[in-house]
Amino acid sequence: MTGGDAPDEELVGRVFLGRVLEPGDEVGGRWVREWGVAEVVRRLRGRGARPAGVSDKRWAGLLARAEGAEPERDLAAARAAGMRFVCPGDAEWPGQLDDLGDARPLGLWVRGRPSLRMWALRSVAVVGARACTEYGAHMAATLAAGLAEHGWVVVSGGAYGVDGAAHRGALGAGGATVAVLACGVDRPYPRGHTQLIGRIAEQGLVVGELPPGDHPTPSRFIVRNRVIAALTRGTVVVEAAHRSGSLATARAAQRLGRHTMGVPGPATSGLSAGVHELLRGDAVLVTDAAEVAELVGDMGELAPDRRGPVLPRDLLAPGARGVLAALPGGRAAPVDEIARGAQTTPDDAVARLYELRSLGYVERHGDGWKLTRQAMISVRDGESRC
Amino acid sequence: MTGGDAPDEELVGRVFLGRVLEPGDEVGGRWVREWGVAEVVRRLRGRGARPAGVSDKRWAGLLARAEGAEPERDLAAARAAGMRFVCPGDAEWPGQLDDLGDARPLGLWVRGRPSLRMWALRSVAVVGARACTEYGAHMAATLAAGLAEHGWVVVSGGAYGVDGAAHRGALGAGGATVAVLACGVDRPYPRGHTQLIGRIAEQGLVVGELPPGDHPTPSRFIVRNRVIAALTRGTVVVEAAHRSGSLATARAAQRLGRHTMGVPGPATSGLSAGVHELLRGDAVLVTDAAEVAELVGDMGELAPDRRGPVLPRDLLAPGARGVLAALPGGRAAPVDEIARGAQTTPDDAVARLYELRSLGYVERHGDGWKLTRQAMISVRDGESRC
Repeated sequence: MTGGDAPDEELVGRVFLGRVLEPGDEVGGRWVREWGVAEVVRRLRGRGARPAGVSDKRWAGLLARAEGAEPERDLAAARAAGMRFVCPGDAEWPGQLDDLGDARPLGLWVRGRPSLRMWALRSVAVVGARACTEYGAHMAATLAAGLAEHGWVVVSGGAYGVDGAAHRGALGAGGATVAVLACGVDRPYPRGHTQLIGRIAEQGLVVGELPPGDHPTPSRFIVRNRVIAALTRGTVVVEAAHRSGSLATARAAQRLGRHTMGVPGPATSGLSAGVHELLRGDAVLVTDAAEVAELVGDMGELAPDRRGPVLPRDLLAPGARGVLAALPGGRAAPVDEIARGAQTTPDDAVARLYELRSLGYVERHGDGWKLTRQAMISVRDGESRC
Repeated sequence: MTGGDAPDEELVGRVFLGRVLEPGDEVGGRWVREWGVAEVVRRLRGRGARPAGVSDKRWAGLLARAEGAEPERDLAAARAAGMRFVCPGDAEWPGQLDDLGDARPLGLWVRGRPSLRMWALRSVAVVGARACTEYGAHMAATLAAGLAEHGWVVVSGGAYGVDGAAHRGALGAGGATVAVLACGVDRPYPRGHTQLIGRIAEQGLVVGELPPGDHPTPSRFIVRNRVIAALTRGTVVVEAAHRSGSLATARAAQRLGRHTMGVPGPATSGLSAGVHELLRGDAVLVTDAAEVAELVGDMGELAPDRRGPVLPRDLLAPGARGVLAALPGGRAAPVDEIARGAQTTPDDAVARLYELRSLGYVERHGDGWKLTRQAMISVRDGESRC
């Protein structure tokens, strides 16, 4: 929620619509685009005409779901559970999701400290088979750890197999990871990953379109994949059989103009067959994190330093602005000193520093952090309002 | 040798030059192109001026080698050992080797019954690491067997590892295979492949640029690779470490405009690292023989039937013409009947039928062989002179 205590009508309306429309419903998405949230809510509350082209039966189904929706209660419960709802127009909204057009999520439920918008700016998806081989798990973990060490945020779906190995690899390297779930983010699925997803919420972000308490279905897994594809700069498929769900993620990434990559495996392995199919198309073969980073880091790994910040300071979340202001001008500082200056905890300071790194404001220097040359120039030129 | 008993001056001259110049010597190749074989021989016999741009020392070295050359003796010994010398201009010369420009072989020593020209028309190279893994050997053998079953001739280098597995895979499927050696074709190398290379000479072809008795050297292995690349429609690399010789073959194929393919393997395997490097470039990932055949068979697997013969009948070797003439017009015939009609052995008839199949003249039909529709049309139109 964007700052203040009283959530605005648009946000409450979107939470309401999330109880009525299934994720990825492009017809509903078109209504929202054409008439605005308030008008769609009004009609679904039974106070307006049935839209053209909708059958009686479908309309009755939507109205029935609308009757049970209690968005204010959802928001209160979510707040109590440490969740927030981020929607288009919010400072934390990742603008690249707009590429999904009418299939754009109504909003995302988020657990975790960092800014989703900023982490997503410098993120890569690592996805693959649930029933992966030892080789697949090893490659997912190694790639994710390497990406985390290169300063990339690792996004995956929280599932068994490749997804779990990728999240664990990033966490194990002390890096940043985001799980995009196909269920309510308060309701970790699969159950066997309750602990893992809890750790991701502590150290990273757990996000999803579905309202609190909702359960996953086969079609929800499929539509969830478009969010993973759209959120990230590229998708790496580690192991996938023919017709696997991770291939759908890769193809969505391709349609969205994101980089699509695959990790090769033995030609004799059915769990690599889907990846090889991708690699015979336009996907790029990758064997380590450096190759992934080279591809998705458009201007090379030093790009942020050379380009300078990609987001004006006044769009930074207050927490990140505080940490940025606490960095000394001409030297590196340890995390403890920065946290004291920003009046926050060292854990929170690290989360913010990663965001600021994604944006090209700060860089690691030995054990500490310092402003990049570009950030110092923008301070000198008076661009900053913080 | 092209027919008659008395080898012509050009052929003897090329055998002589093969004793003096190293394979792939582009300076020598330019002399041959600019002055003709006879003039280069004259000069190297000490009866002409030293060419411009050649040092005293190098020229003295060439003259010393020339002094020891006895081409007529080479040819007589070769004939006695069942070898022939095929050179540009011969009916059996594979014209695609001319793509090598001044690095074109002076000629090729050949052991085996089939026509090199015709087998090469429909051939694919399968190459890779000597010290391959079990996986590499399995993939090489499976690919080669599959290619042989699709009617493709499998070309490789006769080495341990991938090469040997490819030759054995093709032989095991009753298919056609060609070993291109980096030494005299009467002197199988490696020694441990004496039996295998003997079998290839019985059932297929063993070819090489080096004169009888010559031994391989590291640089001869490298220059040999250009012949494998040029002879075939495409090169598949099965396993290769970084900086491996088979990558040189693949790159030569790429420069020559041939298809370049690679079989993926685990990203953790150093023996797949070179292949993955290729696949990150312009090479195409392949996992089975059908994918290779689809790529190299320009017009699809039915192409020869649809296109009709690619070589006029009067360019066929006499043995192939005899077998072609023995095929009945309107039905399929078993090999025994064809062999009787052509007054040859069933083994020889099979070798010729494979050549004719490469050229689109014949096709398998149950257990027998029959003329293709196109071949029958060309008979009707009086194109044939056999």
